[in-house]
Amino acid sequence: MKLFFEPESVALIGASSNEFHPGYQLFLNLRDCFGDDCYPVNPRIDQLDGSTCYPTILDVPTDIDVAVVFIPAKAIPQALEQCAQKGITRVVIESGGFAETGPEGLAIHEKCLKIARQNNIRLWGPNCMGLINVTQMKVLSFMKQFLWKDKFIKGSVSLVVQSGMLSAGFLTAILNKTPFGLSKVASIGNKMDVDESDVMEYLISDPDTKVIAMYLESIKDGRRFYELCRSTDKPIILLKSGRTELGAKAATSHTASLAQNDSIIEGMLRQAGVIRVFDMNDLMNTARCLGISRVSKTTSSGRLAVLTFSGGAGVVATDSLADHGIELASFPTALKKGLKTVFPDWMDPENPLDLYPAVEKNGPGKVYLHCLEKVLNDPGVDGVFMHLFSWFTQQSTVSFEKVATLAEKQNKPIIAWLLGGAESNLEFSQHLESLGIPVVDEISKGVRVLSALIKGR
Amino acid sequence: MKLFFEPESVALIGASSNEFHPGYQLFLNLRDCFGDDCYPVNPRIDQLDGSTCYPTILDVPTDIDVAVVFIPAKAIPQALEQCAQKGITRVVIESGGFAETGPEGLAIHEKCLKIARQNNIRLWGPNCMGLINVTQMKVLSFMKQFLWKDKFIKGSVSLVVQSGMLSAGFLTAILNKTPFGLSKVASIGNKMDVDESDVMEYLISDPDTKVIAMYLESIKDGRRFYELCRSTDKPIILLKSGRTELGAKAATSHTASLAQNDSIIEGMLRQAGVIRVFDMNDLMNTARCLGISRVSKTTSSGRLAVLTFSGGAGVVATDSLADHGIELASFPTALKKGLKTVFPDWMDPENPLDLYPAVEKNGPGKVYLHCLEKVLNDPGVDGVFMHLFSWFTQQSTVSFEKVATLAEKQNKPIIAWLLGGAESNLEFSQHLESLGIPVVDEISKGVRVLSALIKGR
Repeated sequence: MKLFFEPESVALIGASSNEFHPGYQLFLNLRDCFGDDCYPVNPRIDQLDGSTCYPTILDVPTDIDVAVVFIPAKAIPQALEQCAQKGITRVVIESGGFAETGPEGLAIHEKCLKIARQNNIRLWGPNCMGLINVTQMKVLSFMKQFLWKDKFIKGSVSLVVQSGMLSAGFLTAILNKTPFGLSKVASIGNKMDVDESDVMEYLISDPDTKVIAMYLESIKDGRRFYELCRSTDKPIILLKSGRTELGAKAATSHTASLAQNDSIIEGMLRQAGVIRVFDMNDLMNTARCLGISRVSKTTSSGRLAVLTFSGGAGVVATDSLADHGIELASFPTALKKGLKTVFPDWMDPENPLDLYPAVEKNGPGKVYLHCLEKVLNDPGVDGVFMHLFSWFTQQSTVSFEKVATLAEKQNKPIIAWLLGGAESNLEFSQHLESLGIPVVDEISKGVRVLSALIKGR
Repeated sequence: MKLFFEPESVALIGASSNEFHPGYQLFLNLRDCFGDDCYPVNPRIDQLDGSTCYPTILDVPTDIDVAVVFIPAKAIPQALEQCAQKGITRVVIESGGFAETGPEGLAIHEKCLKIARQNNIRLWGPNCMGLINVTQMKVLSFMKQFLWKDKFIKGSVSLVVQSGMLSAGFLTAILNKTPFGLSKVASIGNKMDVDESDVMEYLISDPDTKVIAMYLESIKDGRRFYELCRSTDKPIILLKSGRTELGAKAATSHTASLAQNDSIIEGMLRQAGVIRVFDMNDLMNTARCLGISRVSKTTSSGRLAVLTFSGGAGVVATDSLADHGIELASFPTALKKGLKTVFPDWMDPENPLDLYPAVEKNGPGKVYLHCLEKVLNDPGVDGVFMHLFSWFTQQSTVSFEKVATLAEKQNKPIIAWLLGGAESNLEFSQHLESLGIPVVDEISKGVRVLSALIKGR
């Protein structure tokens, strides 16, 4: 897989001069990333924006690490034969028209696979957006430049996505709203040859990848997938669609994925410690938060403290935690005594802890810091779900640095649910997340992240 | 209830000159809304920002529709006696320190209730944010002015909330992000006397209320609640917390709510046609969308068409619809033929329908309009889940007016899931929602709204 993600030279079979064609977007991206080591191929044009175009791959005057292909499906077997002749061992097919379109496409699929097997070629795709190595900014994808330039920043989250638009449009829309750092983005399409396990194996060994997030419509080799997941401490988050009968049918026409019994998959994922999500925002948000948190998978029993500014939010959070099988820590007398000093007389601190009466008496700065330190220092508390209201908690008034250091030292996760105005929230989020405290805008999202950090699923 | 929501004159027992005290916020709000018909009461001050302060309610020189009370719990029974003497029949107690704090508070609770019963006084609260009639802009709440001024716009959604912060902070934060129109906001707290059914009965008969959304920690009179829900066509959306054992315990210390068996409640809600949600964002978003949609509760069998720009999103949406027991319409041959004209040869239109290949061929404007009209005109399609990508679908290119009119005429809901950049999304949303097409930013949210519109739960 390394050669797919870290090539030094690429050819583009199907370079196009039509700016609306993916073959032109691909050319722009590859030339941007590989400069003179990008070789466009198209028998009908001589030059493309100043670069020489070669009639066939055989005419390219140098060795090539990866050939990227965007031509009609029926022309691909011949192109593959030529790649084989040229000694190319890595081919990324991004065009569609294969098994997802019916018997004719399936025949082409079989033919391509046969050529690849005979010539030791690994095939990526078809029917996909290709791949992007964000760490080295190598873009083997027809994703439009405005979608990835500036918006893709280097980080620790890698994505494996079995859908074109989801890896392009959806990802970019999410990044536009809440930027987060990426390492590798892999759109694997029909998985003719290279599948999720191949990519996952690479990502597990990739030092720049800390979190792996996947959207899959099928799992090709369940056993291998299971064993790879078990072999790593890196969190793996999965949105598996085609879960339901109707969804599975839709997946077949999308990426020619075969239906799989979801209850078998569910059991396998549970045992493999995979974090399962059911919506795309959840997939991205959980990955983003796990990328931010500096806490490693804990082996604690996962008893949480909920610190809130709203009794109602405390109850909703407690319900949601219970749905995920997460227990609240029971506060021992010593802790209650320690907390009590900032509360009014009439209130006995219990978990979930409504800080509001204390905040009214002593101000948010003092109260949050005091209570966070007390609960983190209690051995019976394994993590904190903290609710903040940016409109009344001035950022400067709470010394979150101190809290974050303490939490990191003890390997106890803190997740913040943040409410308030757009501007004050942004300021707050950036500060907290720079300290390794992920911020969510919905209670259930925070619970999902906590669940992933505490229970690994 | 009408007198609570539409009073002409109010007294404020516990008016405060301390700007950090809720008694001062209450004074500001009441004076803003009632002018000279707002009478502050406080024995320790003569004047408050130029208004005369009366030592007791008995000194107020006129009749009063509603007394709002914010004084320590132990002083309230005496104040209530005086309200009775004065002939006041509606009292809103917003201060806490009652049954939620233990035996002493419970004794005060009993005492207040006895006085009220003996004197035909209806008691609202205690331990709540009071109520706001947005239609008439009457604010009987200590909510800070910056939280409601400008942000509360008139509309058709009414809220009943058993939690202070949720009705204030959370609601305002949501409105700040996605403004929507409100009719009445009721924070009912401990429900000493007035409960959710009392308020719901009023809202059902209120011509300005189209949608009722509730956050409750308990349901006081299940039978009455059930019958009220059954009696109306207005959608009722409920977030009932304290569902789990732990959550119920937390609810008790929050608003003295008693634990209730959730499976019994679940059955009751299902039969009553209540739309149940499990997160606060879901509560608000579902209410907002139902307020926007011009479709009335349908009696159709609810077979949907999914029109998407992403095969993957189509599969995820299909799974999510199946989770809610919603079926996809099966496209008859005539419909497929009609759709086919904008698709490339290799693609046979199926439901979920991936428009992308057609968009590549014919542009988004033509394709969306063509396919929306075709599916809406098919008698086997009861509604449409439409996915849009604002970055490539220019708003001006699709004549959504035409589509919206058609959908409204046929009483078929359309919900749009919108992806793209912040600016283009905002423009798109405002346009679509002005046409009665609600826009969501997450597939699962759209499915929840569709489920509410189609199945009434």
